[in-house]
Amino acid sequence: MKLNEIAAVLGLDNSDFFTEIIGINTLRDAVEGEISFLSDSKYEKDLFETRASAVILPKEKGDLLPKGVVALPSEDPYMSIALLSKYFSKPIKSSETPPEIGEGCTVYPTAYIENGAKIGSNCTIMSGVYIGSDVRIGNDVVLYPNVTVYRDTIIGDRVGVHAGSVIGSDGFGYAHTKTGEHVKLYQNGNVVIGDDVEIGANCTVDCAVFGSTQIKNGVKIDNLVHIAHNCIVGEYSILVGQVGLAGSTTLGRNVVMGGQSATAGHLSIAPFTTLAARAGVTKSIQKGGTYSGFPLMEHKLWLKLQAKLAKLLES
Amino acid sequence: MKLNEIAAVLGLDNSDFFTEIIGINTLRDAVEGEISFLSDSKYEKDLFETRASAVILPKEKGDLLPKGVVALPSEDPYMSIALLSKYFSKPIKSSETPPEIGEGCTVYPTAYIENGAKIGSNCTIMSGVYIGSDVRIGNDVVLYPNVTVYRDTIIGDRVGVHAGSVIGSDGFGYAHTKTGEHVKLYQNGNVVIGDDVEIGANCTVDCAVFGSTQIKNGVKIDNLVHIAHNCIVGEYSILVGQVGLAGSTTLGRNVVMGGQSATAGHLSIAPFTTLAARAGVTKSIQKGGTYSGFPLMEHKLWLKLQAKLAKLLES
Amino acid sequence: MKLNEIAAVLGLDNSDFFTEIIGINTLRDAVEGEISFLSDSKYEKDLFETRASAVILPKEKGDLLPKGVVALPSEDPYMSIALLSKYFSKPIKSSETPPEIGEGCTVYPTAYIENGAKIGSNCTIMSGVYIGSDVRIGNDVVLYPNVTVYRDTIIGDRVGVHAGSVIGSDGFGYAHTKTGEHVKLYQNGNVVIGDDVEIGANCTVDCAVFGSTQIKNGVKIDNLVHIAHNCIVGEYSILVGQVGLAGSTTLGRNVVMGGQSATAGHLSIAPFTTLAARAGVTKSIQKGGTYSGFPLMEHKLWLKLQAKLAKLLES
Repeated sequence: MKLNEIAAVLGLDNSDFFTEIIGINTLRDAVEGEISFLSDSKYEKDLFETRASAVILPKEKGDLLPKGVVALPSEDPYMSIALLSKYFSKPIKSSETPPEIGEGCTVYPTAYIENGAKIGSNCTIMSGVYIGSDVRIGNDVVLYPNVTVYRDTIIGDRVGVHAGSVIGSDGFGYAHTKTGEHVKLYQNGNVVIGDDVEIGANCTVDCAVFGSTQIKNGVKIDNLVHIAHNCIVGEYSILVGQVGLAGSTTLGRNVVMGGQSATAGHLSIAPFTTLAARAGVTKSIQKGGTYSGFPLMEHKLWLKLQAKLAKLLES
Repeated sequence: MKLNEIAAVLGLDNSDFFTEIIGINTLRDAVEGEISFLSDSKYEKDLFETRASAVILPKEKGDLLPKGVVALPSEDPYMSIALLSKYFSKPIKSSETPPEIGEGCTVYPTAYIENGAKIGSNCTIMSGVYIGSDVRIGNDVVLYPNVTVYRDTIIGDRVGVHAGSVIGSDGFGYAHTKTGEHVKLYQNGNVVIGDDVEIGANCTVDCAVFGSTQIKNGVKIDNLVHIAHNCIVGEYSILVGQVGLAGSTTLGRNVVMGGQSATAGHLSIAPFTTLAARAGVTKSIQKGGTYSGFPLMEHKLWLKLQAKLAKLLES
Repeated sequence: MKLNEIAAVLGLDNSDFFTEIIGINTLRDAVEGEISFLSDSKYEKDLFETRASAVILPKEKGDLLPKGVVALPSEDPYMSIALLSKYFSKPIKSSETPPEIGEGCTVYPTAYIENGAKIGSNCTIMSGVYIGSDVRIGNDVVLYPNVTVYRDTIIGDRVGVHAGSVIGSDGFGYAHTKTGEHVKLYQNGNVVIGDDVEIGANCTVDCAVFGSTQIKNGVKIDNLVHIAHNCIVGEYSILVGQVGLAGSTTLGRNVVMGGQSATAGHLSIAPFTTLAARAGVTKSIQKGGTYSGFPLMEHKLWLKLQAKLAKLLES
C-alpha cells in the first residue's frame, strides 16, 4: 500500500506519494518500509531514532523525526493506526504449501492443520486441534484435544499444551471514537513459545499487536491463565491457576505468580519475584522479593497490615 | 401440557383442568398459554398485571391475580417451577430442515451445524465449531476454532468469536430441597448477540432461564470472561479479561469493566460507568463514574482509603 | 521396574536389587509393589504404617520405616520422585479393545473415543468431544461439544458437562532444581465424578498426582471453575463462576462457594460452609458457617470490618 493511498484512506495530508508501506510497527521496532505512530507521549523519545519510513503523529511532533522519515500529521494517531491496521490484517489462510509433518508424529483424524504449517518429529496432535497457517512446531510436542493454535505461532521442543487452550487469539485493542464506538486495532503479531514449556487447560495466550508475545524456555502455566498481547514471560516462571497478565507485562526469569494474581499492563517484574495468591501488580517491581495484596506491598508489610486491621476490628 | 397434568405432576390442587400450557415465563413477560410463578416477594407487584394463564404461588397470594388467571398454590413455588421446567426443556435437536448457509461462507470440514440453523453470507465457520438447532447468524461473522454455539442463539452481523468460547450454555439455576439436594431449573431461554460484537477466547455466555441473555451492538469482550444467564450488556461496553457477571446483571451503554472485576446478580450499572480492575459490584450503580474496590466505592474514595491504610500501617 | 534400576536412575544407594515396583503412591495409600516418598515432615507420621515396598526419604528417617520396607535415602526426595515419575507415566493410548457404547447413545461423527473406553446407555456425546483410554461413563450422561475427558476418568449417571470443559488434565506439580528449573511430577491419578453432577462451560478439573480427584454426587459447578489435583468436592456442594480450588482441597458436603472465591491447597472445609464471593481460604475451616474476605473471617466480622474502614475513611 502506497503512502498516498494510506493518506487518502485516513484523510491525512502528506507530500510523499511513492513509498510502498508493507507493515505497521512500533517506533522502536519498525524498519524501512513500515509505518509507525506516536499516540502516547511516553514514547516520544523513540521518535528520534525510528527507522520507520513514515510516522502518524500529532502535527507539532513532525520535526522530531529523523531526516527522510515522512510525517503524517493526525489529530488522533491511535485512531488513524487502528483504521489503517485493517488493511494490513492477515487472512486466516495464506499459504498453498501443504503442511509438513515430521517423522514419528501422531495426528488424530479430526485435527485440522492449515497449509504452510510445519511440525517437527515425534509430536502428538490430538483430536479437535487446530493449527493455523505458517505455524512452526518443534519436536516432541503434545497438543492435547481441542487446542487452537492461531497462525504464525512458533512453538519450541518438548512443549505440552493441555486441552482447550488457545494460543495466538487476537489481543484486545481498540481505538475509541468520540461517540464511544470502538475501532479494532488488528493484531498482526504472533506468539513465540520456547522449549520445555507446559501450558495447562483452557488457558489463553493472545498474539502481539506487532512483534511477539513470548513465553520463554521452561515456563510452567496452570489452568485458566490469561496472557494478553505483547507479554514476555521470563524463563522458568510459574503462573498458577487463573492468573491474568494484562498487555505488555514483562516478567523476568523465575517469577512465581500465585493463584488469581494479576498485573496491570505496561510494567515489568524483576527476576525471582514471588507474588502471593490474589496479588495485584499495578507498578513495575524493580527488586525480587515476595509481594502480596492489592494495592501490592511487600509480603511482610501485608502481614503487618492484616495485624493492624485485626486490631482495628477489636477496637 | 394441560394444567391438570401439571398440577398432578407437582402434587398441587387446581380447579381448571383444560388450559393447555406451552411454556414457563416470568410474571412480567408471560403471555397467554404460559405458566409463571412467585418465589420472591420483590416481584409481588408483577402479579397484578401478569398475562400468564396460571401462576404457581403461595396460597395466600392467589387473590392478587387478575381475573381469569389460575392460581396453583404451592408451599415452595421455586421448587415447583424447577420440577416443572424439565417438562418444557428443549431437546438438543429439534428440526429436520437442513441448515441454510449463505453465499461466500467457508465452513471447515470438522465444523458441525445442526438442522434448523441459518447462517448469512460471507461467514467463516472454522474447525471444531458447533452450531446448534435453530441458531441464526448474520453476515460476515467469524467463529474461530472450537467455538460452541448452543441452540436458539441469535448472532448479528460482523461478529467475531474467538477460539474455545461457549455461547448459550445452561444458566446456573437450581431449587434446593430441605435435605440439601439441588433440582435443576431448566434454562429455556437463549442468547442474543448484536452487530459488531467481538468476543475473546474461552469466554462463556449462558443462555437465559426465560427470555434472552443480551450482548448489544458494538460490545467488546476480552478472554475468559463469564456472563451468566439473563445479563444484558449495553452497547459499546468493554469487558476486560476474566471479568465475571452474575445472573441478571444489566450494564448500560459504554460500561467499562477492568480485569477480574465482577458483579453480584440482579443489579444494574449506569451507562458510562468505569469499574477498575478487581472491582466488586454488589449494589446497583445509579450514576456513571469511576468505581473501585470490594466493597465498591468511588475510585477517589478508594484511593483515600488506601492512603489511610498506609498511615495505619506506619502507626 | 526393579528397585536396583530405580536406584541407578536416581543415583541413590540401596541394598535390595530384586523387588519389582509397579507404581508410585503416597505413604498412606501405597500398597505392596509401590514406591513412596517423604518430602514434607508433616507426613512423617505416615512412615510408621506405610505398606509401600520402598520409600525415598532423607537418610536419617530410614529407621522410622516398618520392617521390610526398603529405604532409599535421597538428599531431595521430591526431586527423586519427580525424576522417577516419568518412568511410570501413562501413555495416551493403552488399550486395543474398541470402545463399548451402550444402547440408545448418540455419538456425533466428530467425537473421538479411544480404545478401552466404556460408555453406558442413553448418553449423548456431542461434536468435538474427546474421551480417553479406559474412561468409564455411566448412563444418561451428556457431554456437550468440545468437552475433553482424559484417560481413566470415571463419570457416574445423569452427569452433564457443558461445552469446552476439560476433565482430567495434568495436575500442576513440579520439583525445582537449585538453578531454578522445573522437573515435572507426572500426574498418574484420575478424576472420579459421581452421579447427578453438572459441570458448566470451560471448567478444568485436573487428575490426581496419585489416587483420584473426586467430585461427589449431586455437585453443581458453574462456568470457568478450576479444580486442581487431588481435590475432593463433597456431595451437593455448589461452586459458582470462576471459583478456584488449589490442590488437595477437601470440601465437606453442601459447601457453597461464591463467585471468584478460592482456596489455598492442602486444607479442608467443614460441611455446610458458605463462602461469600471473592472469599480466600488459607486455613482449614472446622465449623460450618458463613465466611468472607481475604484473609478469611466470619461474615459478621467482615461486615464489622467494613464499617470500621468506612469510619476510618471519614476520620
